[in-house]
Amino acid sequence: MPLSARNQLRGQVKEVIRGDVMAHVVVQVGENEIESVITRRSADEMDLRPGDTVSVVIKSTEVMIQK
Amino acid sequence: MPLSARNQLRGQVKEVIRGDVMAHVVVQVGENEIESVITRRSADEMDLRPGDTVSVVIKSTEVMIQK
Amino acid sequence: MPLSARNQLRGQVKEVIRGDVMAHVVVQVGENEIESVITRRSADEMDLRPGDTVSVVIKSTEVMIQK
Amino acid sequence: MPLSARNQLRGQVKEVIRGDVMAHVVVQVGENEIESVITRRSADEMDLRPGDTVSVVIKSTEVMIQK
Amino acid sequence: MPLSARNQLRGQVKEVIRGDVMAHVVVQVGENEIESVITRRSADEMDLRPGDTVSVVIKSTEVMIQK
Amino acid sequence: MPLSARNQLRGQVKEVIRGDVMAHVVVQVGENEIESVITRRSADEMDLRPGDTVSVVIKSTEVMIQK
Repeated sequence: MPLSARNQLRGQVKEVIRGDVMAHVVVQVGENEIESVITRRSADEMDLRPGDTVSVVIKSTEVMIQK
Repeated sequence: MPLSARNQLRGQVKEVIRGDVMAHVVVQVGENEIESVITRRSADEMDLRPGDTVSVVIKSTEVMIQK
Repeated sequence: MPLSARNQLRGQVKEVIRGDVMAHVVVQVGENEIESVITRRSADEMDLRPGDTVSVVIKSTEVMIQK
Repeated sequence: MPLSARNQLRGQVKEVIRGDVMAHVVVQVGENEIESVITRRSADEMDLRPGDTVSVVIKSTEVMIQK
Repeated sequence: MPLSARNQLRGQVKEVIRGDVMAHVVVQVGENEIESVITRRSADEMDLRPGDTVSVVIKSTEVMIQK
Repeated sequence: MPLSARNQLRGQVKEVIRGDVMAHVVVQVGENEIESVITRRSADEMDLRPGDTVSVVIKSTEVMIQK
């Protein structure tokens, strides 16, 4: 099912740091690393681990431009 | 001056669509396109045009993971 | 593929207002209406119309509480 | 005083998990659960507890659509 | 009713630009201007005009730091 | 390099609370306090401490209005 979020980039999980409520996830996307903060619950339910193939998903209204 | 936003990716502007209040900007980042919606005013003040070298900037709390 | 966003609620599109860059979408979810602003492009590519069955998706870090 | 955020849904707190900096709050809204992450400080100052009647508040630009 | 959003600053509306779907609002807060983009509908329903006394409300997870 | 985020306000750090994954930062901006939640990693890499002169940066689409 397509999602309206315009940014959906494939990559591989490099690191998952689980905190009490939040988790910090680092994903390698091409030559870049993209970092994400999600709930600890989602990280656990998705069983996120280094090496997993995932997509990072970002709504376009959350993206800024620097020139 | 460093900014706390952990995602700052270099790319090139491919397209700028100016609306009445908002502008839609497409940036080529490596092999991916990243799309952004900013204010029309910012697009005008930064004089954003196709071909510009820019960074896309995204706070990590705005990034979701799909597995 | 599961998405980390913890809020994914089924509903029916009631209204779609297409602007130049953005679109305003109203979805009936149970007894509530939930309103969304997405890009005009996503609304067009998904061919969103009243009556469509959709999910509204919201990252938990975007949800505030009022007591 | 009215708030511009278009989504303000009444519900009942089901669960509050307090972390060091953030808190995870689950609210029953009609037939759905809506999950929120707010600061630990706000959870403490509002003295959020299961059973509280609250509203969840969401800005429409934060709502995605999946079809 | 208290809201979990930790930033609620009083100010005066200086400018309202109504677009087709969104509206751009500029608020004078102390010595600073704060700019907001809300839906056209909210701007109309709240009948926002220059001179109005309002609060700008910002969830702390949306605030970045630059040093 | 200019950033599209329209709100960039100078202030002084008053408090930094470091959690496991996130950090809560309070900044004095004129007569107001503005609170931010960023990653623990950014707080550490920027070596944020009380007394630091910083800017708080907020995308206008994240700012609500209450009247």
